[in-house]
Amino acid sequence: MTTTENPVRNGVDTATLFATLDAVKGNPDIAKSQFRATNRWVSGTHNQSTIHGFHGALQEMTHQQPWTFDADHPAVLVGNDNGPTPVEYVLHALAACLTAGLANIAAARGITLTEVESTVEGDIDLLGILGLSDQVRNWYQQSNVRFKVRGDDPEKLRQVIEQSRQRSAVFDVVTNGVPVSIEVDAG
Amino acid sequence: MTTTENPVRNGVDTATLFATLDAVKGNPDIAKSQFRATNRWVSGTHNQSTIHGFHGALQEMTHQQPWTFDADHPAVLVGNDNGPTPVEYVLHALAACLTAGLANIAAARGITLTEVESTVEGDIDLLGILGLSDQVRNWYQQSNVRFKVRGDDPEKLRQVIEQSRQRSAVFDVVTNGVPVSIEVDAG
Repeated sequence: MTTTENPVRNGVDTATLFATLDAVKGNPDIAKSQFRATNRWVSGTHNQSTIHGFHGALQEMTHQQPWTFDADHPAVLVGNDNGPTPVEYVLHALAACLTAGLANIAAARGITLTEVESTVEGDIDLLGILGLSDQVRNWYQQSNVRFKVRGDDPEKLRQVIEQSRQRSAVFDVVTNGVPVSIEVDAG
Repeated sequence: MTTTENPVRNGVDTATLFATLDAVKGNPDIAKSQFRATNRWVSGTHNQSTIHGFHGALQEMTHQQPWTFDADHPAVLVGNDNGPTPVEYVLHALAACLTAGLANIAAARGITLTEVESTVEGDIDLLGILGLSDQVRNWYQQSNVRFKVRGDDPEKLRQVIEQSRQRSAVFDVVTNGVPVSIEVDAG
């Protein structure tokens, strides 16, 4: 342990982080997890998800509270703007995943962060989702993340962002995709 | 117009929906949009995104209010559980996008919905994001969506879900991926 003098860095308890890594190395099944969201249609493009239970560390667990999130379309997309669009939630998730990894990895490497901000933009041609063209994708034609990071040596900070990118779950799915099955109970 | 007798179905104003489709057909540039999220690191794995401005219909617009969303890791993942994990937000976005499309498409087809619920699950082996294995993906090994839909004829409801899948922006990215560039201002 080289971190006993300052086990908490960037708000990350590195002693716990390293202990968790050791525990998983000792029993890799601990790492098998399942996350979930349940969604209920409200009206039109307005619907609401609840996030609460998950499976982790070989047991069923819950977050400290259930969270609900409204999604909708803005008026210009024939909705009532009761919440962000689903695509905006994905941009948020991408920024959040890269930033969480950044803080953890920096802490593990003994690098101090003082400020991290990011903006994620996605350019999307709605001809796809409106069913008006088969020539454009439903999703963003391109997406871009801009990070502003302050703290220790800039070159080390860039390396930490690169490592976060390589280990980010959301960056993985957004850039590589994953199979999704859909089951329907219609009645 | 076959919908003048009941222009609002499933909470969707179909007259406005068809007028919007006609407007985009007349000027496809209206469909070129940009959505955004800005994120600020708080501490450790806790960070917060704001969603407000977007570009659509040839102009800069804002949602009726800025929304903020906290993301964090649970304690079992060395966080403080101040919000859902980033991967859970993606599951929420997937359910929300499929459900919004479902309501719109059903309304356009004159099909009435009475109830729509869905559960999205993602099985993830954290060995990837923990940097303990290059043999597993960072993201979910598999993801599954279960829909319960009630309303008109079950077969028509199944067809509407299939069409929503084909036109869903979030389903597209989650299954097919998209390039993402990252710019870093480190100081």
